[in-house]
Parts: sequence; structure tokens; C-alpha cells
Amino acid sequence: MNDFIQPWEQLAGLIKEKDSVRVAQFINDLSPSETARVISRLANDDQMLLFSLLSPGDAADVIEDIPEAQAADLVEDMSSEEAAAILEELPSDHLVDVLGEMDGKSTRAVLAKMDLEDANEARMFLEYAKDCAGGLMISEFLVYKTHQTIQDVLDDLQANREKYIDYHVLYFYVVDQDERLAGVLRMHDLLFPSRNTILSTLMIPSPLTIPHKASLRELENFFDENHLFGVPVVDDDHRMVGVILSGDVEGALSKRKTKTFLRISGIIGGEEFRTMPLLSRSGRRLAWLSMNIVLNIIAASVIALHQETLAAAITLAVFLPMVSDMSGCSGNQAVAVSMRELSLGLVRPGELFWVLAKEARVGILNGLVLGVLLGMVAFVWKGNPWLGFVVGGALAANTLVSVMLGGMLPLLLKRLKLDPALVSSPLLTTVTDMCGFFFVLSFAAALMPKLAGI
Amino acid sequence: MNDFIQPWEQLAGLIKEKDSVRVAQFINDLSPSETARVISRLANDDQMLLFSLLSPGDAADVIEDIPEAQAADLVEDMSSEEAAAILEELPSDHLVDVLGEMDGKSTRAVLAKMDLEDANEARMFLEYAKDCAGGLMISEFLVYKTHQTIQDVLDDLQANREKYIDYHVLYFYVVDQDERLAGVLRMHDLLFPSRNTILSTLMIPSPLTIPHKASLRELENFFDENHLFGVPVVDDDHRMVGVILSGDVEGALSKRKTKTFLRISGIIGGEEFRTMPLLSRSGRRLAWLSMNIVLNIIAASVIALHQETLAAAITLAVFLPMVSDMSGCSGNQAVAVSMRELSLGLVRPGELFWVLAKEARVGILNGLVLGVLLGMVAFVWKGNPWLGFVVGGALAANTLVSVMLGGMLPLLLKRLKLDPALVSSPLLTTVTDMCGFFFVLSFAAALMPKLAGI
Repeated sequence: MNDFIQPWEQLAGLIKEKDSVRVAQFINDLSPSETARVISRLANDDQMLLFSLLSPGDAADVIEDIPEAQAADLVEDMSSEEAAAILEELPSDHLVDVLGEMDGKSTRAVLAKMDLEDANEARMFLEYAKDCAGGLMISEFLVYKTHQTIQDVLDDLQANREKYIDYHVLYFYVVDQDERLAGVLRMHDLLFPSRNTILSTLMIPSPLTIPHKASLRELENFFDENHLFGVPVVDDDHRMVGVILSGDVEGALSKRKTKTFLRISGIIGGEEFRTMPLLSRSGRRLAWLSMNIVLNIIAASVIALHQETLAAAITLAVFLPMVSDMSGCSGNQAVAVSMRELSLGLVRPGELFWVLAKEARVGILNGLVLGVLLGMVAFVWKGNPWLGFVVGGALAANTLVSVMLGGMLPLLLKRLKLDPALVSSPLLTTVTDMCGFFFVLSFAAALMPKLAGI
Repeated sequence: MNDFIQPWEQLAGLIKEKDSVRVAQFINDLSPSETARVISRLANDDQMLLFSLLSPGDAADVIEDIPEAQAADLVEDMSSEEAAAILEELPSDHLVDVLGEMDGKSTRAVLAKMDLEDANEARMFLEYAKDCAGGLMISEFLVYKTHQTIQDVLDDLQANREKYIDYHVLYFYVVDQDERLAGVLRMHDLLFPSRNTILSTLMIPSPLTIPHKASLRELENFFDENHLFGVPVVDDDHRMVGVILSGDVEGALSKRKTKTFLRISGIIGGEEFRTMPLLSRSGRRLAWLSMNIVLNIIAASVIALHQETLAAAITLAVFLPMVSDMSGCSGNQAVAVSMRELSLGLVRPGELFWVLAKEARVGILNGLVLGVLLGMVAFVWKGNPWLGFVVGGALAANTLVSVMLGGMLPLLLKRLKLDPALVSSPLLTTVTDMCGFFFVLSFAAALMPKLAGI
């Protein structure tokens, strides 16, 4: 477009020169979101060449900066040796996120090439559901035995300074000879007592823990209740298996919201980025749209069934999409409020009647206001009060149906273990379209002599 | 409905008995999300009575558990003395969140009754935009002078054990005599050296800092790049004013996603909960819907202008809502992808042509597929190939328009400093409705002799 050279063009140049020092330097100077953007704009060949030029550590830094779905695509294209070397440099939770996005075959191939201990750990993490405690915990924590002393801890801290620098050292965990969690120590608990004090006399015994299968909701509640940075995760035998950080729980909640947003907008089957191949982008969008086209045909069949009414009062065709559209908007508001209240725990999936009662009032009020507004427009336009009644009445009735249905749907779907973000909107639209068309055309049929010829 | 007594009914009973001990106990036994639910279901009088029964500390715990919008409503209903006593017990960031949701008059009244130092601090926080560093930082941090020794720090930690227990003690900050940030110390830096070591010789000088006006995007990038729990915030003179925790940045991002989700669903002007008064719920939803009704009228006027075409081929009325609905869905997918890429920094608001080129390809492909599908349905139904051409062609053309527009809109709106979540969807719907109606009816007009009477 102009003479300005885009950063990915500069980077592509450096990559073609195989200048690994300047390539590493160039990427180092970018912020994480710039890195993500620049990498995503490179041609696939250049991306592969780039990773072969970077040290595994630098490559891992890049992998951390780009969205997981893209990272997984890139790693799948590498040889499993190269992928393993890079992934070993990632923190445990991020490693599992990337492996979890890859297809099962690639994951197994990469794990086979990884350091045995790291691989076994990753396999353990992968067995957990993504959003439960086991799936969110990190394995970088400091653990000592009950019979060790403060001096033992200090010696270990001195000896492993380099290794621990990236650890989230907030608490020290103390386990008994069976690896069962016995207590926790804060850093400043080590400051005052004599250095030969045995940890078991110093630790806070029976600390708060989280079971490894705890759900995201339970974790959210835990950190709301306890203002802690992290909490130890224990398995069924009370053995310590990891640490969950409050920030990672916030991160998981945030990710869940992104998924909801994308799904409710019809982007299903994971994230879409415009740098992905055309056919996969188009195909995934079509999967959703072609289901929608079927629902649309069902809804429109209501119009087909009332074609004579429409032919007798053709002006109604102007109002059909308006009534169905407006009601759809009203219903979507109710869907959003229900989804929000469900996610906060303010409403339970079983409380259908409570929601119905609350939405019915809004539906009647808003239906009346909107119905009168649209009815007046119709009346003024054609000078026929009956047209106003038909159109306004249909909008009022359909608004009531739509907000009640919209409020209920997320609760019902949750009870049926279906994702409200995925199913609410198309189902709501179909039903409100059908009802909207039906109300307009059957009200009109009932008043036909008054409407004929408009 | 049945004999089961709801928890809020139990609580209401205890409140009426003014049994403050059992009330406090009852609430203490609830998880945060249960607390939020139970409180929201109490009658307003009982809510007020509840807070008067609880100690300010316990009341503050309740305030922390409920959504900010509701907390602000409750606090506004209290006397400013009572409100001040409770709010003083909140952590600084949460205090500011609640004050920020209250109306200006109530905020000032409460601040006037608060401890002067706390009030001044809150006023300073309130001056910052909610999502910038100043608005997200906490003021509970430990700061010492460069000339102090390790022993001074240890003495302070011993003396203020109780007070510091809720602090996020991860780092110690060291400032010079002008309160300018000079260095940072980690807890374990105190473990090894002799206790009369002066902090300035021990601290890590020139630590990473965040300017107080840094945006949420800058904070996100900072914590992506630096795996830290917290970072000091400095004002324009490099004086330390607070600490930002990585978890709070995640929390702010998560809140922003909630806002986006609600706005895109037509819930504007803040959160809505079903326990809010009917008129305010209805009114806020109507504000949005009545704007939509105007847009709908504009779109439908296209049908009104082509009424003769429609009268001549009434079957087209069945396809009008389908074409506009389907294209709307396609466009919303493109809106979601653009909003997601913008929020990740993968696309810049200026890159309209890049987005257009990418979306045009998807639009042509998906338009053709959907157009052929719908065209076939129309052809099979009425046995008229021309109807298939009109309907399929219109859907294909309108899909292309819609995905290109949908992809572009968030970028354009961002450049105009408008909120894409608020404006994209209604604008997109209006334009795709208009174009959809226009394509169907004008294609039909062009082929009229072939379609007449269907």
C-alpha cells in the first residue's frame, strides 16, 4: 500500500538471511501482543524457519506469547524432536494448554520425545478436565519434609537460586514421609526462629487445600473467600500434586468468557483467526450457518402457510421481519441476564418459575410499550387503526413469549447439560420468528375484512 | 412451592428475631456465591436490617461477596455513617470499585464520614480511569527507606504482624527521602545477609515499574512479558503510589469481557439482575430496544418501496426474513472474529483492507454455498428455477456484503472511539436487512415476467 515496511516483512527478511542473532533480538524487542501479531502474519514456511533459528528457550517465549490455538497449529507442523525441545521450556500449565489444543496423535509423538519425568507429569495433567483444579495447577512449587530444618530450606534456596527464580515462591509446603501434605510455611516464618528449628514445629498445620477434582466454580468461591495467592492441590490420598494460583483461576474464568462470546456469535469449534487457512475458517462458519438455514426454513414455513392472508394485505410483509427481529432482541436480553446470573450463582437451573415470573413482568411492560409504538407507526403510515392493532398486538404478544423463553432457555439447557451459549440464540430466534409470523398473520386473518387491500 | 425452606427465608427469620450472632454465623457458613444469591433474594428492608445487625467487618465481607452493582445499591440505601464504617473495612481496590458504582452525591457523603486518610486515598483512586493502572492498584504494600536496615524491616514485620496478615507481602519496596522508588527486595533477600545490612546495598535497584496512567492493554502486555505477581506503580515524578497484582489485571480483563457480552446482547448501562426493581430493568432494556425499533423501521422501508414486486410474487415474502436473518448470522461471525483479534492485538484498527481481503474470500465461498442451498430449496418448493436464482443470488450477494461489513465494523468503530460491542450488531443488522430486502426484491423485479404469480 505504501513504502512503510511491516514488521513481519522485516522479520521475514532476517529469517531468509538465517541471521539467528538478529532474529532473536528482533523478537525480543516486541511486546507479547506485537509478537503474536507479527508471527501470525508470517508465511508458514517462514514460521517454521523462524523456530529452527531460535534457541528452544527463545522459541518457548514466542509460543507463550501467541494464542494457544495458533501455538498448537505451529507445534503440530514441527518435527516431534524440535517440538519437544521447545515445549520442555514452557511452564507446566502453559505446556498442558498447548498440548491440550493439539490432536491426540501429535501430542503422543511429542510426549514420547520429551524428558521422561516432564512427559509423565504432562500426561498426568492432561488427564484432568481443563477447567478443574488438576488442569489449572502448576507443578513449580517448593516442598520440604517435616523433619527438615530452616537451615535445610535456606541451603536449598541458596543452591537452587537460578532454578527457583521463575518459581512462584510464596509459600513452602511441608509433607510427611508418605508425601501427604502436613503444613505450610510462609517465607517470613523463616525470618525469626533459630535456624535449626524443625519445620514441623514451625509450620501452620492442616493448611487449606483444594481437591484435585475441584471445579472452576469451587475454585472461584475458594479465592473469593480466602485472599490467598495460591493454594496446594491434593489428590484423594491427601498427597500434594500441585499449586493453584489465584491469577490462573481468574485467567481460566476469562478464557471461559471468551468462549461464551465466540459461541454466542456463531464461532464454534474453537477460536478463529484470519491467518488460519481459508477452507477451515469457511468450513467452521458454514457448519453453524447451515444448521441455521434449516431453522430459518422451519420458521419461514409459517409465512408460507398463511400466504393468502398476506396476499390479501400485502403491507403486512413490511412488518413481518420487524416483529420477529424486535422480539429476538428482547429475548436475547433475557438470555444474557440468565446466563450472567447462572455464572454468578445468583440463580439455579431449577428456578424456572422464579425466572418466568420476573421475566413475565418485564415482557408485559416492554411488550406494551413497543407494541403501542409500532402500532402507532403502522396506523399513521396507512391510516388504518386495525393494522395498528394487528402489528402492535403481535409485537406485544411476541415480546412476552420471547423474554419468557429467553429467560428460561439458559436454565433449561444447563439442566440438559447443553451449552447455553451455543444453543440459546438459534433456538430462541427460530421460536420467536415462528410465533411472530403466526401472531401477525393470524391476528390479520381474524380481522381480515378490515385489512383487505392495504 | 413445597415445604423446603429457602435459605433466604431462614435468614429473614433470624433477621426478624434480631439474633445478630446467629445471623453472622449463618452468613459465615455460606460460600461467596451463595451469599450473593441469598442476600439478593432478601426484601430490601431485611437487607438493611441485616447490615445493621452485622459488625462492620462482617458486613464488609458480605459486600465483597456480592456483585459491585448490587453492593453500590445497598450502600446507597444506608446512612452515610453506617456505609463509611463498613466500606473502611474493604481492601482499597474493592472500596474504589463500589464507590465508583455509586452516584456522585452518595460517594461524597460517604467519603466525608470516612477516616480522613482512607478518604483521601479513595479520592485519589477515584480520579483514575477504572481500567488504568491507577484504578487497579492496591495501596496495601510495604515500603521502607533506603537507609533502613534488615533489622528495621524485621522489627516492623514483628510489630505489625496482625495488620500485615491481609497484605500481599511478596516484595518490599525501598524509597529515597523524596518518596521516589529506589529499589525492590524480595522476602528471601532478607534471609541470608547480616541484620544490620542497609537496604540500599541489598535492594535490586531501578526495578520494573508501571506508570500510573498505563492502560489495561499495557498492563496485560507487562504481565505477559514478566512473570511477576505484582509491580509497583509510580506517578509522573517516579513516586510510588501503589502496587498492581497480576491477578487483578486478569480480573479486570475478565470484567471487560462480561461487559462486552452484556452489551452485545443489548444489556446496556451496567449489569442487570432480576432482583433489581422492575421499572429500572424494563426501562434500561427499552432504551436499547426503542433505538432498535427505529433502525428496524428504516430497514423495513425498503420492503415498502418494493411493494408492487412483492404483490406480484407473494412467495418472496417467505424468503425476505430468511435472507436477512442468515446474512445477519454470517456478519455476526465476522464481527466476533474482528473483536477478538482486536482485543488480542492481532489486528490494528487501521488494517481495514487486510480484513476486507480476508473476509471477502470467506464471504464469496460461504455466500455461494448458502446461496446454492437456499436457491435449491426455493426451486424444489415452487418448481421455478428463476425463484431459485433470485433467492440464492440475493443470499450469496448479501452474505458477501454482510461478512465484509461485519469484519470492518469493529475496526471502524474503534477508530471512531465507539464501543464495537454496543454499536456493531444493530448497525450490521440494519444494513444487512436493507441490503437483503433490496437484493431479493430488485433481482425479482428484474426477472419479473418469470416470477409473476408464484
